[in-house]
This record gives sequence, structure tokens and C-alpha cells, in this order.
Amino acid sequence: MKALVYGGPGKKSWTDMPDPAIQHPTDVIVKMVATTICGTDLHILKGDVPEVAEGRILGHEGIGVITEVGSGVTQLAVGDRVILACVSSCGVCSNCRKGLYSHCLNPEGIPGIGWIFGYMIDGTQAEYVRVPFAENSVYKVPDGVTDAEGILLSDILPTGFEIGVQYGHVQPGDVVAVVGAGPVGLAAVMTAQLYGPSQVVAIDLDDARLARAADFGATHTVNSGHADWKEQVLALTDGAGVDVAIEAVGIPQTFTMAVDIVRPGGHVANIGVHGKPVELALNRLWIRNITISTGLVNTNTLGMLLKLVSQHRLPADKFVTHRFGFDQLTDAYEVFGNAAEHDALKVLIQA
Amino acid sequence: MKALVYGGPGKKSWTDMPDPAIQHPTDVIVKMVATTICGTDLHILKGDVPEVAEGRILGHEGIGVITEVGSGVTQLAVGDRVILACVSSCGVCSNCRKGLYSHCLNPEGIPGIGWIFGYMIDGTQAEYVRVPFAENSVYKVPDGVTDAEGILLSDILPTGFEIGVQYGHVQPGDVVAVVGAGPVGLAAVMTAQLYGPSQVVAIDLDDARLARAADFGATHTVNSGHADWKEQVLALTDGAGVDVAIEAVGIPQTFTMAVDIVRPGGHVANIGVHGKPVELALNRLWIRNITISTGLVNTNTLGMLLKLVSQHRLPADKFVTHRFGFDQLTDAYEVFGNAAEHDALKVLIQA
Repeated sequence: MKALVYGGPGKKSWTDMPDPAIQHPTDVIVKMVATTICGTDLHILKGDVPEVAEGRILGHEGIGVITEVGSGVTQLAVGDRVILACVSSCGVCSNCRKGLYSHCLNPEGIPGIGWIFGYMIDGTQAEYVRVPFAENSVYKVPDGVTDAEGILLSDILPTGFEIGVQYGHVQPGDVVAVVGAGPVGLAAVMTAQLYGPSQVVAIDLDDARLARAADFGATHTVNSGHADWKEQVLALTDGAGVDVAIEAVGIPQTFTMAVDIVRPGGHVANIGVHGKPVELALNRLWIRNITISTGLVNTNTLGMLLKLVSQHRLPADKFVTHRFGFDQLTDAYEVFGNAAEHDALKVLIQA
Repeated sequence: MKALVYGGPGKKSWTDMPDPAIQHPTDVIVKMVATTICGTDLHILKGDVPEVAEGRILGHEGIGVITEVGSGVTQLAVGDRVILACVSSCGVCSNCRKGLYSHCLNPEGIPGIGWIFGYMIDGTQAEYVRVPFAENSVYKVPDGVTDAEGILLSDILPTGFEIGVQYGHVQPGDVVAVVGAGPVGLAAVMTAQLYGPSQVVAIDLDDARLARAADFGATHTVNSGHADWKEQVLALTDGAGVDVAIEAVGIPQTFTMAVDIVRPGGHVANIGVHGKPVELALNRLWIRNITISTGLVNTNTLGMLLKLVSQHRLPADKFVTHRFGFDQLTDAYEVFGNAAEHDALKVLIQA
């Protein structure tokens, strides 16, 4: 088969690789029909994630059709069209039984880190993929859900919803600010609306992204390049601060922005993948009764979100701006890696 | 009347002051029968809290008997013996209606900071005190509850319980670590047991405090001066980390200790009053699904805790190690300010 293979920092190729085979009774093999690229793949390619070995097939998002099932698989069958959760998880370890799939203690990866596709094991940017713990890690796709909708459910929509909206405890009537209007931030903008907020404020440096955020349901947009950006946000809440601030960038500045606009008693939900420590002003914050959460997605809401997508309650297909064939995967990387230049959000790669 | 008056950094005196008078219809006047000293009072005396004006009567904890009620007070009467909550709150502003009394928007203090006794208005280390918003800010003391029990309910027990145990989401079966075995840390050790944890681990540098923590119900004690303190804590959880880590000191090192011992998916509840920012290692923590909370006590559990104290379910009187008369208040400060030397925990000052 062909696959997108990491060749060390800065190197990738669409090349021949052995077809994957069942290794454990709980595995399935999936012939991929769609995949996409995530910012994390770009980090790996830069060499920021040294645990990823040369020769690893990248990618952790995808839709495909099952072609083979392990002997222990009873609830999936050859021919099932499925979404692969980016976090595969055994479902039975002590963390999984708490719904903490992101810290599955399964033996294939780093114990306690549930994300393994395109990281500890071969990923989804390939013609075929072996999926471990398949019954807890794939979701059958209802008829009528397109690849462009379904692909968002592997990672982006659950991440924005679980780590942004749910960890941020968004409640009806809340003012929710989302710092960073990239794919994950927009997923938070979209899914925050499930909890009936009064206002959803998108904050970004890029007016094009802010326009997109408005299309995704943000009621207000604030360009953080303006000197008075913070005053603009606070003015929406009579100066009190927002109820929930969701950080969806992953740098110290944006984390501090999120902390600075939250009201006493409010929540800061960090989604961003950070490469550096941040300064937390506990000298000011100890008295403010705020809560800060972090997290890797569990994908334990994937099935629920899939239902809403299938009912057209969540217009997931809005994320896909560019489409490619599998043999154009390196072109897709070029577009996604220069997203601003191409006005790209998510790229859909289809067989 | 006599009162303990702040005279600027390093200066205090037990001196004559005018008797307080009703200023608003919702005020009451209380003749104090007991008060105590908090670490925050020491901070103020050092000059760390410059908002406190010279001439301010210190103290925010106390028990007394009502001697006068404002014209709007209907549910309290002259002669009632009451505990004064350290946080006085109007009960009707938007924050109070959420139970966020710590950020009462009442006009007497700094809007959004509910703690005003001994800070924005005259405090409880005095023969008489004016209590604003009295019906929401004092609690009648049941017969049989002693001064030594009741005094802990003004601040220490609710702080340990609300900001440590409740904000930390302690659940049955949890392993709870408390970093710092001073009065507030011990309040967390004691009140964590209300939620049925499997283990309560006290962590401190001082073996005498650790011995006291064991007496307060800690199932394990770890001296953090030992090089392997962290391994000792992790060994109690098969290496996974504790479910809840409560920080009750207020310096960067202890905050980092708390963060370093919490399991994926766990909670860090910061109680400590911090004077400096801390470094938060989001580069490691973004993926760990942890929650960090901060807060000033709301005292919205004071009534519930008082009930448990009156039923002898919480042995609150264990905190009081030294007793003084009101005219010995400066002696009490000397003992409390050199607590280790005197093996002091809380000092009770009685009329």
C-alpha cells in the first residue's frame, strides 16, 4: 500500500509500505476512504515530537471501511464504514472506565497517553490502517453523513467540545470567549452553542478567520491586534469578564489573554498544545475563584456529536476548504502548512 | 472600646477606638466574645497588603452577641450569639445569587472582593464590631457549640472545605494530598473526610505538624524535606498520582509540588495566598487533563459545617492550642507569629 511516511525532521514521502495485518484479537483493518492533516502532524514534521520514530506513518484522523476483523471482535463487521477516533482506547483499564480514554493504560502506546495513531503506531494517512481496540475506538457512520462531515469527528469537533466547552463548564446564558479561530477554536465556537450561551466571542489576529468565526456562530469578533481588544471583550460583560475563556492556540500570550478576560468564578479551558511553560499570576488569581483546565480529547462524546452531525444540527462540513486525492497528500500538506496564504481550514484527502 | 489597630507596616496597638454605630439598615452591632488571628493579619502587618489603611482595626474571624440591629434586620435580634463569616456579603447581587459571596459586588469594599473585615472596614479584633449585610453574614450559634469550636467556622474550616475539598472535587475513594499542614491545610485534612476518601496524605517540612495532621485524620504523612518525598506519595497510588492535590501554603514551590503529584484527570486546588506568580508547565500539562482551581472562601457552607460541628462530627476545637484575653491580644500575636517555636496552631482570644 501507499502511505505518508515520516523520514525525520523536515522529511516526508508518499511511498510504498507493507499492508498492515491484524496483530491482536481486538484489532480491525480499515481501508481508508478519507483522512486529513492536523497541526500536530506539522509539529511532528518539524521534529518537535522526538518520540515519533522515522518510518512512522502519520495521521490520526480518518474514515474508512473495515476489511478484516480480529477474532475477538463481535460488534463490527467487514464492510462497516467507520470513523476512527484519534484516541484509541481499550475501554477497560481504570482510566477508560472513568471515561478518561485520553489516558488509556493500554500497552501499545505510552501508558497514560491514549493518542497513538501517527505517534506510537502507524497512522491514518495511508491506504490501510490497523486499528487497535477497535470496538472502543471506531464509530459506525450513519447513512447520509459525508466524508467531509465525518472526518471532523475524529479529533477536531470532540476536542473543541470536550476540552473547550465541557471542561470549561459552559452553561446556558454564559458569555464564552474563544481565543484563536483556527480549526479547534472554531470547533469550540460551533459546539459551545449546544449549551445555549448568550454570547460567543471569537478573538484572533486575523480578520479572515474572524469572519469565518462569525459564520460558525460567533456573536462577536474581536481582533486582538487592536490595543483595546481586552476592553472590547470586557465591555460585552459590563466589565465583569467572560464566564468561560477557551484557549485554542498554545502559546503563553494567548493563555494569559484567556486568564485576563475571565470573571471571578469563571473557567479557563486550555485546548492549545503548548511547547513552553507559562507564567500564571497566582498573586492575582488566588483570590479570583477561577478554574483552569487542560486536556487531550477523550473522544467519549464522538458518538453524540456524530448523531447531531447526522441530524444536521452541527454543520461540520463547513470546516473543509480544500480537497485532494490520496496521491496528492504532499500537496495537501503544502496547503495546510501555509493555511493563511491559501485561506485553508481543514483539507479533506479522499481515496 | 478597645481594639487592635494597624499603625502601618510593623505597627499595631491595643488601643481606644470609638464604638461602632449602625450605618445602614442591614447592619448589626456585635459585642465580641471571641476572636482569633489569621496568617493574613500577619501579611497586613508586614505591609504586604497596602490597601489596608493605617488606623484600620484588624481581624476577620469572630463570635459575639448582637447588641443592636439596623431597621431592616428582621431575622436577627439583640442577644443572639453569632459567628461572623470572614466574608460578609449582601446576598442579592449577581455574584451572591450564584453563591459567589467571595466576590460580592456590595458597595462597602472593593467591588468583586467580598472580604472586607479588617481590610476595607474595621475588623473583629475589637470589643465591638459593625457587621454589614448581617442577615447574610452571621450565623446563630447553637447551644453547646463552644467559642473554640465556633471560631474555626469564620474562615479556616470553610476555606479548607470549599476552596480545597469542594473546588478539588474530592470523591469517595479518592487519594487526597494536602501540601502544607498549617491551620488551613489541617482544615482540608479534616473536612476531606466528609467525602469518604480512601487516603488523605499530609505533606509538610515539619514533623510536628505532620504528627498533628495524623491526629486530624491524615492516613499518611510525608516529610517533603526528604529527597524521595514525591516517590513516597506516588507509591501510595501505584505511581499514577493522587486524585486531588490541595495546596495550602502559597509559594511557587508548593504549588509546583501539588501539580507534580496529581494524576491525569485529577484536580489541583490552590488555597494558598500567593505573593508571586508561578511557572505552570503547560508544555507538560496540556495533555494531562488536569484542573487547577483558586479561590477566596465564600463561607456558603458555614451553616452546614456548623451543624456538623454541633453534632461533634467535626472536632473543630482541636485547632485551638493557646488562649488569651482580649487585653493580651499583642501577646497572642507574638505566639501566633512564631507558631513553630510555640507549637501553636490557632490562638483563641476571649472576652
